[in-house]
Amino acid sequence: MMKKFLVLPGDGIGREVCEAALPVLDLLNLPIQCEFGEIGWDFWCQEGNAIPAATWHQIDMADAVLLGAISSKGKQAAEAELVPTLQGRGLRYTSPVLQLRQRLELFANVRPVWRLAGQGMPFRCAIIRENTEGLYAGFDRQGVPESLSDWLTHPNLARSGLDQAAISVRLQTRFGLERLFRYAFDYAGANGYSRVTLADKPNVLRESGQFATDIFLGIAAHYAGIEAEICNVDAVALDLVRQPQRFGVIVAENLLGDILSDLAAGVMGGLGLAPSANIGHGRAYFEPVHGSAPDIAGSGRANPAAMFLTIGMALRHMGFAAAADRIDGAVLQVVRQGRCLTPDLGGASTTQDMASAILQAVTRP
Amino acid sequence: MMKKFLVLPGDGIGREVCEAALPVLDLLNLPIQCEFGEIGWDFWCQEGNAIPAATWHQIDMADAVLLGAISSKGKQAAEAELVPTLQGRGLRYTSPVLQLRQRLELFANVRPVWRLAGQGMPFRCAIIRENTEGLYAGFDRQGVPESLSDWLTHPNLARSGLDQAAISVRLQTRFGLERLFRYAFDYAGANGYSRVTLADKPNVLRESGQFATDIFLGIAAHYAGIEAEICNVDAVALDLVRQPQRFGVIVAENLLGDILSDLAAGVMGGLGLAPSANIGHGRAYFEPVHGSAPDIAGSGRANPAAMFLTIGMALRHMGFAAAADRIDGAVLQVVRQGRCLTPDLGGASTTQDMASAILQAVTRP
Ligand SMILES: CC(C)[C@H](C(=O)O)[C@@H](O)C(=O)O
Ligand SMILES: CC(C)[C@H](C(=O)O)[C@@H](O)C(=O)O
Repeated sequence: MMKKFLVLPGDGIGREVCEAALPVLDLLNLPIQCEFGEIGWDFWCQEGNAIPAATWHQIDMADAVLLGAISSKGKQAAEAELVPTLQGRGLRYTSPVLQLRQRLELFANVRPVWRLAGQGMPFRCAIIRENTEGLYAGFDRQGVPESLSDWLTHPNLARSGLDQAAISVRLQTRFGLERLFRYAFDYAGANGYSRVTLADKPNVLRESGQFATDIFLGIAAHYAGIEAEICNVDAVALDLVRQPQRFGVIVAENLLGDILSDLAAGVMGGLGLAPSANIGHGRAYFEPVHGSAPDIAGSGRANPAAMFLTIGMALRHMGFAAAADRIDGAVLQVVRQGRCLTPDLGGASTTQDMASAILQAVTRP
Repeated sequence: MMKKFLVLPGDGIGREVCEAALPVLDLLNLPIQCEFGEIGWDFWCQEGNAIPAATWHQIDMADAVLLGAISSKGKQAAEAELVPTLQGRGLRYTSPVLQLRQRLELFANVRPVWRLAGQGMPFRCAIIRENTEGLYAGFDRQGVPESLSDWLTHPNLARSGLDQAAISVRLQTRFGLERLFRYAFDYAGANGYSRVTLADKPNVLRESGQFATDIFLGIAAHYAGIEAEICNVDAVALDLVRQPQRFGVIVAENLLGDILSDLAAGVMGGLGLAPSANIGHGRAYFEPVHGSAPDIAGSGRANPAAMFLTIGMALRHMGFAAAADRIDGAVLQVVRQGRCLTPDLGGASTTQDMASAILQAVTRP
């Protein structure tokens, strides 16, 4: 069956790396029908939403969605009412990636992390972040409501007054955690990892930590060969820097996972090699972790490797594992050889040159 | 005036590094009266609190408190009712360091971070973490109370039911943030830093982010020569790994600061070189960031450098800056020479040997 693959290049280097990496699909000759859609800054200016209605329709019809990058100018523009066409409409900017994650219920944000020998101790692991609840659930406000003032007693609050405070609620649910943990253990099994680590803060957030721990161990009991470990998130951050090779899959709440995965991208050598997948039941979108990078857009300096690896993740998701392996292998080969690297990896090649080298390695490994 | 310095060696390697490093006080010949007090696991077993009442009294009389480390066995023991003397008393374990921070209102947790040339790009910066509110304010529970069910509407919660969920509230107050930011800018000024970065998540936690941002910029306006920067915490985590030299002082909410400071300890080469200060108005305690380290306790492998640097921070706090400089200089010298290092730094020296080298460098720099 033909798979529908929707490509949304978006803004800045998102467009550039899409253009550089997508030819790999032609080389691989797969039963995939590629379609392009519009997203990004221009549509924010025209419609007050970076994701046009027509694109939502395309997304609904696709088997997988590939996203380049979306400019984060929208938020500032919305606040400053900078866009003439939108002035006075009092629009509130909602990050397009958060819209995608929430509306499509893409509950697992998967970020594989790895380092080749020669750049420090080699390792590979994956961070799986909860993507629909936690501190991103949307309960963040200035002022403490009267109805909470009995519960939230604190000396600092008494001194400040209820209106001179802000609260943010981290919401975690059995439904949300069960599907997340199940996914994490399945992913570990499918990718040859023998340990899943829950990174939270049970030594301080005792009750929510216990809640997550109980659910985690309940799910773990169904996965005999995989070790379930519970670890304080600060210790995980330290170990990701010092001994990342000790991890298999790390699973964490939305904001904690956000921090750990950017940190892990740092450990693996920057954002240039970091792909990601946002997975739901029967829905998924894929994007390199780097953003639209306005500082280097148009200069030919963007590293296309993350986009190649991201396409690989999308292909794997659509059932083309062998093709994904070929892409992964080609990227590793080019990085290992070190002859054709973009400046972020210490080389002097352009986006196009590095992409050509990877494409060649796909054809003749 | 004679200063009162209370030393609480505590458990595990806490005792060992105190014993190894404290002789530096004799060498420096300062108007300090040193007193010892009891804290730790034994007192948990006897009194159901790791901090005995007599120690609280000593703390109240001291100008500064030095803490070695406290075993974290208490929590497990409390849960399992493992301690015969305490059985059936239904005691709840509260981390002694959290008790100290909250009861003494030590609102700023200061962790200087640095790396010498030769171990990667050299840098020095400091992480200042809010220490009394945020996600550590104590509002963490299983089950969503009816009174919140109007506000906390979320598809996952509807599917799970109010009792199959957990919530954790991050509370931030004007009072708490103003004193924190003021301290951070003062610290930057006093220590030669030209930038203070607020690490939060304003692009997602919009309202609390805006609240903190407004207060931050309000305080910053009083510090003309120091740049105020607001940054998403995930980007800060990435930059701490990739380009830590870009930071001066980083200031963050309690849990975010906890994660960033452990991550930064990783970047600087591990916990062996990481001191910390917990500062309030007229009160302070100082501790190395490493814990009691039961895995290496008693083996003579503990790195005493963090304790030396921690004593330095305490001396600086009590007004003995020149003495603190001598300790810092001696530690740097020994680390730089690389002849007498404990195993965590790649050497084969014992705690005592490395301490002796540092003591010698204090006497004859
Ligand atoms: C753009 C932002 C809302 C997003 C997040 O915080 O999830 C980004 O940092 C990411 O990690 O994909
Ligand atoms: C022991 C624990 C409660 C503590 C914390 O989380 O603050 C520790 O990790 C620290 O950073 O001092």
